[in-house]
Amino acid sequence: MRALLLYEHGGSDKLILAKVATPTPGAGEVLVEIHAASINPVDIKIREGLPIGPALPAILGADLAGVVVMTGEGVKSFKPGDAVYGCAGGVKGLGGTLAEFITADARLLAPMPANLTFREAAALPLAAITAWQGMEKLALRSGETVLVHGGTGGVGHIVVQLAKAAGARVIAAVGSDEAAVLARELGADDVVNYHSDAVSDYVARHTGGIGFSAIFDTAGGANLAKSFEAAAPFGRIVTTNSRVTVNLGNMHGKALSLHVVFMLLGMLNESGRAAHGEILRQVAAMVEAGQLKPLLDPAHFTLATAPDAQEHLHSGDARGKVVVDIA
Amino acid sequence: MRALLLYEHGGSDKLILAKVATPTPGAGEVLVEIHAASINPVDIKIREGLPIGPALPAILGADLAGVVVMTGEGVKSFKPGDAVYGCAGGVKGLGGTLAEFITADARLLAPMPANLTFREAAALPLAAITAWQGMEKLALRSGETVLVHGGTGGVGHIVVQLAKAAGARVIAAVGSDEAAVLARELGADDVVNYHSDAVSDYVARHTGGIGFSAIFDTAGGANLAKSFEAAAPFGRIVTTNSRVTVNLGNMHGKALSLHVVFMLLGMLNESGRAAHGEILRQVAAMVEAGQLKPLLDPAHFTLATAPDAQEHLHSGDARGKVVVDIA
Repeated sequence: MRALLLYEHGGSDKLILAKVATPTPGAGEVLVEIHAASINPVDIKIREGLPIGPALPAILGADLAGVVVMTGEGVKSFKPGDAVYGCAGGVKGLGGTLAEFITADARLLAPMPANLTFREAAALPLAAITAWQGMEKLALRSGETVLVHGGTGGVGHIVVQLAKAAGARVIAAVGSDEAAVLARELGADDVVNYHSDAVSDYVARHTGGIGFSAIFDTAGGANLAKSFEAAAPFGRIVTTNSRVTVNLGNMHGKALSLHVVFMLLGMLNESGRAAHGEILRQVAAMVEAGQLKPLLDPAHFTLATAPDAQEHLHSGDARGKVVVDIA
Repeated sequence: MRALLLYEHGGSDKLILAKVATPTPGAGEVLVEIHAASINPVDIKIREGLPIGPALPAILGADLAGVVVMTGEGVKSFKPGDAVYGCAGGVKGLGGTLAEFITADARLLAPMPANLTFREAAALPLAAITAWQGMEKLALRSGETVLVHGGTGGVGHIVVQLAKAAGARVIAAVGSDEAAVLARELGADDVVNYHSDAVSDYVARHTGGIGFSAIFDTAGGANLAKSFEAAAPFGRIVTTNSRVTVNLGNMHGKALSLHVVFMLLGMLNESGRAAHGEILRQVAAMVEAGQLKPLLDPAHFTLATAPDAQEHLHSGDARGKVVVDIA
């Protein structure tokens, strides 16, 4: 099969198109012919050397949509011909999805939503599982107002839709007028600009100065300080990125809770794998019910140009998910 | 009545014994004759100028045990002669307990445990409510192992007992051999010394290297880095002190949750007051059932020597709670 191989960590030029043996599924695995893969920010960090990555040489890539072609011993949940999607590769001990085939742990897959193309389905798994697990931590009350930082990003655009489906009032923080329009199309009730709007201003405007009782911060890092500032007393914050040194004084003064969601840990730590497949089944049901749709960047890439897809995502110019068409 | 008055923020010498008018209970308040008060670390910070403190001149002190002598309009939960305990003062908008009387919001009080002296009861409220709210956040599973940093401190000694009552296995982190003996008497299954034991060592010894799924960090601050290091993947950490700048990389890599408990916020924010009285009723039931007892420092102080009581707590030489006998 054809695949992009990484022999050494570094830039996107380190991804080399090559021919390798098609793998054979072991016990609990299925062989999937990949039709589309999507790029996530963590793929780029792993390419650069993040320690959770696979031993080199390796095939990178986490998200896929494709068709089962063979099942390994003990697999009863899928049969050849099933269209599936999942976040099934790209980290230590697993294969990668920037390839024509992958042997995937069957627990990480679910039947693909019937009303999506392979491109659309491949955009969902990592981001949707992350959003879902974060929503479980937030435990929004119906009618509660939630602030979503990065409301049109890979995770954020799903959070906005899940929060609306849960009956919340959603304020999306975005970085441009174009993103503001998009956030409203996704269902956001109102929008703030995190470049030009002061936290104190939008806290006053949207919460009467009390602060947000629930915040989903998909930017994280240095932005966490803004989330602490925007939070109400006893507020809950979920983030997907806490790789930062930050002052927690506001967490103290407001008695806040901070939850970090890092879904790849549930793949590395095998105890989390069955939960991932189960979440994707629930995500598929919401997609089929018209409550959730992936947001795709319009650019098209192939396996050969997947390094450009990573650069496109890394540039910050992409909107929603960047997808690679493989078959 | 006699009271210690603070005219300006600063050291314990700023607490001046004075005669002031005995207050009259307003609607929803009761007048309590204070028999004992206890000192908490936050009292010292408030004396030094922490912004949550009352406007000066003020009477400081949060915890009390005493007897109701008069009830204000609308109070049905108490009558004159009732022995009560509570954390009812010391912050903005409220009276203080380093005095012979206080008018207390009745929601903040509960009937005193029948098997305790006033001294013992006064030791409990702030620490017990803090421990209780933290345990609610931790949501320990029966049989789960919990690491308690500061296992013989004001909050920690209650956490150890609540965790045992919840069926958990308790590892107490303490700072001396004497404290280790005490922690075992309180019910700790095992003890580590946070000065001499490396985190990696006790994680290996008590969790097989996986880390603790639940940690109650009553030290907090710079110690939070140790809690992050000691945590298992997906672990939950509760702390009573996050006034610190800290690297959250370990929170990210392990997908941790961090909850800050700051019970005084529930007094400042009136919405939390009824919950405090309710928790103290449940605490009293546990005390009366023999599942929980306060740990009192053996030193005795009076209203006139209460500044020395604050110094004694501040010195770090006290064990458990420092109490002031008032009547």
